[in-house]
Amino acid sequence: VSESVGKLTLADIARLAGVGVGTASRALNDSPSVAPATRARVLAMAEKYHYVISPDASRLARGTTGRVAVVVPHLSRWFFGTMVEALESVFREARIDVLLYQVGDRRDRQEFFQRLPARRKVDAVVVVGFPVEETERERLELLDVQVVAAGGQHAVYPHVSIDDHQAGEQAVGHLVSLGHRAIAMIEAVDPDQSPSPSQRSAAYYSALEEAGIPVDPRLVVRVDWGGEQGAEAMGQLLSVRNRPTSVYAHSDEVALGAIRTIRRAGLRIPEDISVVGIDDHPLAALTDLTTVRQPVWEQGRRSGELILSLLEGNPAEYSLTLPTRLVVRSTTCPPAASD
Amino acid sequence: VSESVGKLTLADIARLAGVGVGTASRALNDSPSVAPATRARVLAMAEKYHYVISPDASRLARGTTGRVAVVVPHLSRWFFGTMVEALESVFREARIDVLLYQVGDRRDRQEFFQRLPARRKVDAVVVVGFPVEETERERLELLDVQVVAAGGQHAVYPHVSIDDHQAGEQAVGHLVSLGHRAIAMIEAVDPDQSPSPSQRSAAYYSALEEAGIPVDPRLVVRVDWGGEQGAEAMGQLLSVRNRPTSVYAHSDEVALGAIRTIRRAGLRIPEDISVVGIDDHPLAALTDLTTVRQPVWEQGRRSGELILSLLEGNPAEYSLTLPTRLVVRSTTCPPAASD
Repeated sequence: VSESVGKLTLADIARLAGVGVGTASRALNDSPSVAPATRARVLAMAEKYHYVISPDASRLARGTTGRVAVVVPHLSRWFFGTMVEALESVFREARIDVLLYQVGDRRDRQEFFQRLPARRKVDAVVVVGFPVEETERERLELLDVQVVAAGGQHAVYPHVSIDDHQAGEQAVGHLVSLGHRAIAMIEAVDPDQSPSPSQRSAAYYSALEEAGIPVDPRLVVRVDWGGEQGAEAMGQLLSVRNRPTSVYAHSDEVALGAIRTIRRAGLRIPEDISVVGIDDHPLAALTDLTTVRQPVWEQGRRSGELILSLLEGNPAEYSLTLPTRLVVRSTTCPPAASD
Repeated sequence: VSESVGKLTLADIARLAGVGVGTASRALNDSPSVAPATRARVLAMAEKYHYVISPDASRLARGTTGRVAVVVPHLSRWFFGTMVEALESVFREARIDVLLYQVGDRRDRQEFFQRLPARRKVDAVVVVGFPVEETERERLELLDVQVVAAGGQHAVYPHVSIDDHQAGEQAVGHLVSLGHRAIAMIEAVDPDQSPSPSQRSAAYYSALEEAGIPVDPRLVVRVDWGGEQGAEAMGQLLSVRNRPTSVYAHSDEVALGAIRTIRRAGLRIPEDISVVGIDDHPLAALTDLTTVRQPVWEQGRRSGELILSLLEGNPAEYSLTLPTRLVVRSTTCPPAASD
């Protein structure tokens, strides 16, 4: 028993006391910002389980730089803005400053990763929503800092993300279960960040195969992420001779673009064409869009906590996959009887 | 002539050479990141106008901390995300790091401004989209750094923003010119940031007065910013006995919420009720929303350049007001003939 007790981490103490890791850390460091009752609860747990602040743990409080880098491709998009919002709130709570780096295209990324090791300005790096390439990984290694991938799956780094394949299955499965067989996909790919299609595409093919629906390649259009891109893609899909009865879009913004094109063509949603997205963007609720909800703020928060835990010296290189779920609103229904 | 030449700033040289201030600075400091042709152009302008790097100007290159703080209330909202995106790109170009601070509510703000002077971690502070209160201003003064307000008007700091009164007039004026007289307003106020209504409200009253339309207080609903809030406000407006023929919302997100409520009530847009917003949010184009466009990225970029100019020692405490313009899409039309 004593062995396992000896291994209790700050994160464990925090959980036992029912507070965040940052609060626990500050309580143990006698920060005046922690309410007396909260501090008492944390100290009681630390005492009960013989928790002592390890040199590694106290490094968090002292910090070598006291800063974490958050690297993100596009801040103006809801997914990334929300991720950074959540990360910042975790780090702020732990009194760690956030250095923000935006790497919108391949050139930005190259420059960032080239310059990074020369500077040693941070204790950790959070990479938000893009896969790290091999050369970039080598640069990060020179830095000798903790790295966590938020909102993206990585073979080499601990990450917090959703299961894109599952999200895609939920979306396409919904259309299949409504009786659709002519199901189009607008697949979104950012050539600057990740040139190959994601598991959201793979899910489409496997869901169709499972349902015994042959793939019609004319019903798959690949575009960059974004509403205008979705609108254009939908234009292509409407020109296919037997036009689809439903559309699976890789994101809500892409779906909303497709919806505009459908409406402008004088077709009704969902009676003529059903549309489903992925995200549950705040505007999806406002536009009554059926979608697959992913917990974005939660992914950011958990990624931040993972960094804190690693900075405390916990070796646990765990990764987290958060659940997604279908949210049915008014843009999907069974296909019109075709006879 | 020699006097005015002697006063040429780095910003002037940059403009004359057709490059950004950051690029000009790096060119004059022999940074290898500037293309030879660009450097030559900058040096030629500097020579032609006898520009010399002042001790203040070279402070930019050396930097005291090399960091700027960007303080923002909500990162997940498009307006703020876009602002920060633009600011970060200007500072990255100038090799200045961005420390990001999110102050979502009054408590966050108080804590931020309390802790700020103790740290002197930055050379400048950009306050994005909220007015700085008197006590906060005093804390900022202790810091002795440059302060710029991005996307908000301030009596005490240089700022870059739009004219909210003009934007409101463009929106309400559009409804008036279409023949509407029963014009509702959903006014958005963030009680945590700025408890009193903005000039977007004042514009409504003055536009109605100018058109000789008496104000009906039942047609004004005040809510917090956001789509769901707009949806609720619209519910209230639909319950007014003589329901409005048009709605002016303080933002596109609020307008999109109102639109959902109108559609769910079985009413048609724009035939039964016209809706106009402010912003030109990317989803406004996708949802065919009539709105007043404000240049958000541009406000961020100009704010960043203003900081760079101040850091170079330019005394010019100028403020910029960027133009807004009406974008007519399909959510507004003349009111139905009422007889």
